[in-house]
Amino acid sequence: MENGSRQWRFQGNKRLSLTSAISLRGIVEMLMGNLSTDDPRPTIPLGNGDPSQFPCFKTPTTAEEAIVDALHSAKYNGYAPTSGVPSARRFNRAIANYLNRDLPYKLSADDVHLTSGCLQAIEVALAAITQPGASILLPRPAFTFYESRAAYENLQVRQFDLLPDKGWEVDIDAVEALADENTVAMVVINPGNPCGSVYSYDHLELVAETARKLGILVIADEVYSHITFGSTPFVPMGVFGSIVPVLSLGSISKRWVVPGWRLGWLATTDPNGILQKSGIVESITGCCNITSDPATFIQGAVPQILENTKDEFFSKLMGTLKEAAQKCFDGIKEVPCLTCPSKPEGSMFVLVKLNASVLEDISDDLEFCMKLAKEEKVVIIPAGTAFGMKNWLRITFACEIWAVEEGIRRIKAFYQRHAKKQ
Amino acid sequence: MENGSRQWRFQGNKRLSLTSAISLRGIVEMLMGNLSTDDPRPTIPLGNGDPSQFPCFKTPTTAEEAIVDALHSAKYNGYAPTSGVPSARRFNRAIANYLNRDLPYKLSADDVHLTSGCLQAIEVALAAITQPGASILLPRPAFTFYESRAAYENLQVRQFDLLPDKGWEVDIDAVEALADENTVAMVVINPGNPCGSVYSYDHLELVAETARKLGILVIADEVYSHITFGSTPFVPMGVFGSIVPVLSLGSISKRWVVPGWRLGWLATTDPNGILQKSGIVESITGCCNITSDPATFIQGAVPQILENTKDEFFSKLMGTLKEAAQKCFDGIKEVPCLTCPSKPEGSMFVLVKLNASVLEDISDDLEFCMKLAKEEKVVIIPAGTAFGMKNWLRITFACEIWAVEEGIRRIKAFYQRHAKKQ
Repeated sequence: MENGSRQWRFQGNKRLSLTSAISLRGIVEMLMGNLSTDDPRPTIPLGNGDPSQFPCFKTPTTAEEAIVDALHSAKYNGYAPTSGVPSARRFNRAIANYLNRDLPYKLSADDVHLTSGCLQAIEVALAAITQPGASILLPRPAFTFYESRAAYENLQVRQFDLLPDKGWEVDIDAVEALADENTVAMVVINPGNPCGSVYSYDHLELVAETARKLGILVIADEVYSHITFGSTPFVPMGVFGSIVPVLSLGSISKRWVVPGWRLGWLATTDPNGILQKSGIVESITGCCNITSDPATFIQGAVPQILENTKDEFFSKLMGTLKEAAQKCFDGIKEVPCLTCPSKPEGSMFVLVKLNASVLEDISDDLEFCMKLAKEEKVVIIPAGTAFGMKNWLRITFACEIWAVEEGIRRIKAFYQRHAKKQ
Repeated sequence: MENGSRQWRFQGNKRLSLTSAISLRGIVEMLMGNLSTDDPRPTIPLGNGDPSQFPCFKTPTTAEEAIVDALHSAKYNGYAPTSGVPSARRFNRAIANYLNRDLPYKLSADDVHLTSGCLQAIEVALAAITQPGASILLPRPAFTFYESRAAYENLQVRQFDLLPDKGWEVDIDAVEALADENTVAMVVINPGNPCGSVYSYDHLELVAETARKLGILVIADEVYSHITFGSTPFVPMGVFGSIVPVLSLGSISKRWVVPGWRLGWLATTDPNGILQKSGIVESITGCCNITSDPATFIQGAVPQILENTKDEFFSKLMGTLKEAAQKCFDGIKEVPCLTCPSKPEGSMFVLVKLNASVLEDISDDLEFCMKLAKEEKVVIIPAGTAFGMKNWLRITFACEIWAVEEGIRRIKAFYQRHAKKQ
């Protein structure tokens, strides 16, 4: 056989090639590749929810020192202890204690599983519940990673709408209509990405009652927990754990502004032990046993990070986000092709409706974002491409105030240049 | 409906409960749980290949400082840049340069994918090649994680023997007999875990020629690369990349003694671009896009770690391992129920045959290890349970010399107590 004509028996896994096409990363990369190279102005990154590059969002020194202390102790260079071991339980207990501040019952160390950021918590949650033929209910719009991982795990996806005119609340009727005997779970993201919504106690209770009626568990994505700055306080879904079993996903990524540290968790907030009885806990442990852990010294730093961060850090952070959200919301109102159904009260995003019909040469959200990147060096996310919300845009306000203002200024100039002439 | 009689529609993923049962972690945990609590002697951990707890295996200050520098720079608190971005290419290029020292051709940054330790490199490799009905050839014995992940990915596993009397070389005839039109890859672990073997240039070339003939790719697990201290030097499988496409897996875990830092890589060592053409590269990228990255500041430290570590660190490490391996090998020869087919030349392990028939009240490797843990506080791995090698034991010598000597002493005492009376 010649080299050229050789038959190789392997080929790429098509499921994986497919999933990468819809990743948020891919979209941001595409937009970054479209930035004008001869424009001397700084790029305004209103795409990703990662403000760590801005000085005013710098993580507290306490957190940084916790990592350095753990590293220098040389106690955490080895593999992480398995979760049954006392030293591992210390990390898990620190997270349990942190979550217990907001719960009407007490989690133990055994209820918490450390993960490599909230992303891996999502991976583990979906892997643990998948079954041949099973389906999962996802909000539309939702963080895209859910759809990618569900596809990878052969979990059939059914989407219920979030209602823009009701503060992006869950369409409960749609949830009831979509669920059938193969449905095993629904996902609730609160505070909401990409919507900036914060759900009330009553709405979350209604979600819990609905899930209970349907016999499904709730995956509560609370990576933006406590990132709220409006009138509605953050209520963890686990508060309703005695109504319905909840897998609560979280991370230090957002509240400590360190998404690159990759430290998250999955907690079974389920005081009735239903997840234990149904084998979900065993599957979670099994999944954690065959995936890579977060770096051990970062685990080792967790107690110090969670316990020693001063409230002033969080209140300053919320102050900045509140001001930025307001500037963003007010600015958008002055751009005739954009409408914002509700003011963001949490997370780092606002979802904005694009009226392309008032524009001369822009047909949809993707074209809007591509041209905006090229002409104005502003990166925002086309929500049609990213979230299946055609002609919506996701804008993050988690930036220095000047960057939000400058971004809005450039979007206005962009609109004026592309507006239909009357 | 009453709470007690409620029908929940979810249940655990049985594939995951299954995989956890055979994990090495689970076995070590079981043995640790069996240690005598009223024995004041220190535990001798000859189970895991993680000597980071011992002062003489402490990672160099350079490596630690690289992490602290990256952290304090505050440039690496955010999400890692996607692999197409120049700053990400800097990390990947550092690894490419490191691997290029031993290759007859040059890898570029694009050929390298950063992973959360070598474990995640295995995850990605298996995910990228799986197909409905596909099979993979694994060595017996092999690091158990391969079997768990293959089961998870629905890759059918076929095992070829490693030959104890030929330095644990691959049984080439078995490989040829096991492969069929659905076989896509074979795994080669060199230096060998759990065997302590180091393959010669000629043997690796023969493996490459065999894989080429069968039309399958080679997954080369080189997490123990350069951990060699015998007469055979380490040769990376990628040297034969023009014969057969190779996925080369590695990590800083072993050579820098920092398995807890979770920094590894998957490199496509394939100068003919066959993995690109067959879609494997696209699948690898897709998989990396839907899994969590290594912590960004650890990625940021990689260039400094790889470039600035002094040769003296490595030569001292090899000196210690060589002495420890010799002590271990010599000591085992004095225990009548144990036989060591070949002296370890690399990695951190030796695989030892147990002759249970000369023992009074011990029937197999598992009982040997359980009783040894209980009576002597020595942890070694039952290779029957862990690797399907009934009545073999895996012993690591990657400890302080005194611990190896003390471990051997206790194993001798254990033997004498349990030997059949003549």
